[in-house]
Amino acid sequence: MASTFETKATIATFGGKLLKLSHKSNATQTPMDVNLYLPPASNDRKVPVLIFLSGLTCTPNNCSEKGFFHAAASKAGLAVLWDFGEGAGFYVNATAEPWKKHYNMESYVTKELPGAVFGAFGDKLDSSRVSITGHSMGGHGALTLFLKNPGKYRSVSALAPICNPSQCPWGEKAFGGYFGGEDKSLWVGSDATELVRSQLQSGAKLPCLIDVGTGDNFYNQKQLLPENFEKAVKETGVEGVEVRYQPDYDHSYFFISSFAEDHVQHAAKYLL
Amino acid sequence: MASTFETKATIATFGGKLLKLSHKSNATQTPMDVNLYLPPASNDRKVPVLIFLSGLTCTPNNCSEKGFFHAAASKAGLAVLWDFGEGAGFYVNATAEPWKKHYNMESYVTKELPGAVFGAFGDKLDSSRVSITGHSMGGHGALTLFLKNPGKYRSVSALAPICNPSQCPWGEKAFGGYFGGEDKSLWVGSDATELVRSQLQSGAKLPCLIDVGTGDNFYNQKQLLPENFEKAVKETGVEGVEVRYQPDYDHSYFFISSFAEDHVQHAAKYLL
Repeated sequence: MASTFETKATIATFGGKLLKLSHKSNATQTPMDVNLYLPPASNDRKVPVLIFLSGLTCTPNNCSEKGFFHAAASKAGLAVLWDFGEGAGFYVNATAEPWKKHYNMESYVTKELPGAVFGAFGDKLDSSRVSITGHSMGGHGALTLFLKNPGKYRSVSALAPICNPSQCPWGEKAFGGYFGGEDKSLWVGSDATELVRSQLQSGAKLPCLIDVGTGDNFYNQKQLLPENFEKAVKETGVEGVEVRYQPDYDHSYFFISSFAEDHVQHAAKYLL
Repeated sequence: MASTFETKATIATFGGKLLKLSHKSNATQTPMDVNLYLPPASNDRKVPVLIFLSGLTCTPNNCSEKGFFHAAASKAGLAVLWDFGEGAGFYVNATAEPWKKHYNMESYVTKELPGAVFGAFGDKLDSSRVSITGHSMGGHGALTLFLKNPGKYRSVSALAPICNPSQCPWGEKAFGGYFGGEDKSLWVGSDATELVRSQLQSGAKLPCLIDVGTGDNFYNQKQLLPENFEKAVKETGVEGVEVRYQPDYDHSYFFISSFAEDHVQHAAKYLL
């Protein structure tokens, strides 16, 4: 058991255990809550890990109770690690005052959190097999952290992700704060659509599944812009990306839970 | 669409639609909220209905978002109708003042609600094929309403049900209020364990599945008493009852959701 984590609850569910964990983060200098689902398979062998990055309004309980990734992960034999973000942290390292002291979620998710989790649960989790997914702002996080860190994750997926934050009101507000308004290279360096154009070449494989609901208000208000991501993928000649538009689905957990199994199976193709 | 129901939300989930409905009840003389999940199969044919009776602390959103019955019901081709109770109504018709004006949940669930739902959704739902299930106080409701109404429901199941309310603190408080303390025949007439003894004979078939978690505080505090129900079943010679004790599971939605598919499949055996 982790010396670095406090275990606030251990809950039996779908044959495995959901652990509610808390620790003090050096990257953000705040207490951070994460949940970890250990599937029944982890009793017998080290299992791979699917990291789920949460959206803006997500609380720990929301994600793990309503998202139902753990239901499918139990069957597939994957662990799920939920991160709950730092408010509207956008999974970047802020460079501008007053944000740069605490808003370092990129370092937290890519370095500190896996270090702590694999340190504490090294007997159950295989640190060499990790994929990443997320919802809304967390979908932006999953796509950008995958593209910024080649080789770190085996696959990526996203539910209703913010795909082109430098072109939507949510992203403009966040990036204007975290990076300031002047150096736009920082903006495009944390924008999934721009990263496809700058980081990938024709013929590159991007093992990526995206679902978006056509009844999602934020999609319809052009906060998500998956078409821009698709256009960048197509114009760059990147292969392996599937973007699905799901009729009538909204932005809620009713949407997430409906497609959780598909996203677990997408990750499982690359992890198992 | 129902003239009697107001549809507060229509949500796409697991290929079907979750409807958040509200109407004015004559039985309770209050507004009542119910949720109805219409599986994709209901687009093509009339589907059977599984009624889910909620526990004490359940809200509409809890049950339908976290219980996960609709995920399995989508695959099986069942509709799910969630009732959210009337506070601590215990699914009885109160006979004592001041409760008897409003606390008539038995009449509501067995008569008024199905009348309204099958009236409004008669093109999608088959009123001749209905089963009943529930959690905690709602499990008590499912068991007792099944036993009190032979032929009304094809099967019954319950998650962490209050099995012998006349012998547990929660039930003593509720029944003492709703029925008064003097006429104990009213108490045993709404107690699943006592109903098995009074209503069933040796060799009777009771198509009943019960799950209880061994880490459930209320089970351990002897509020649920499934052993008493099992004893009555055994001593009476009733057949078809399965009571399962699930190691470590608690009383929460993490427990309900883990076994929701089993309870949907139990109902489907009798409904399809």
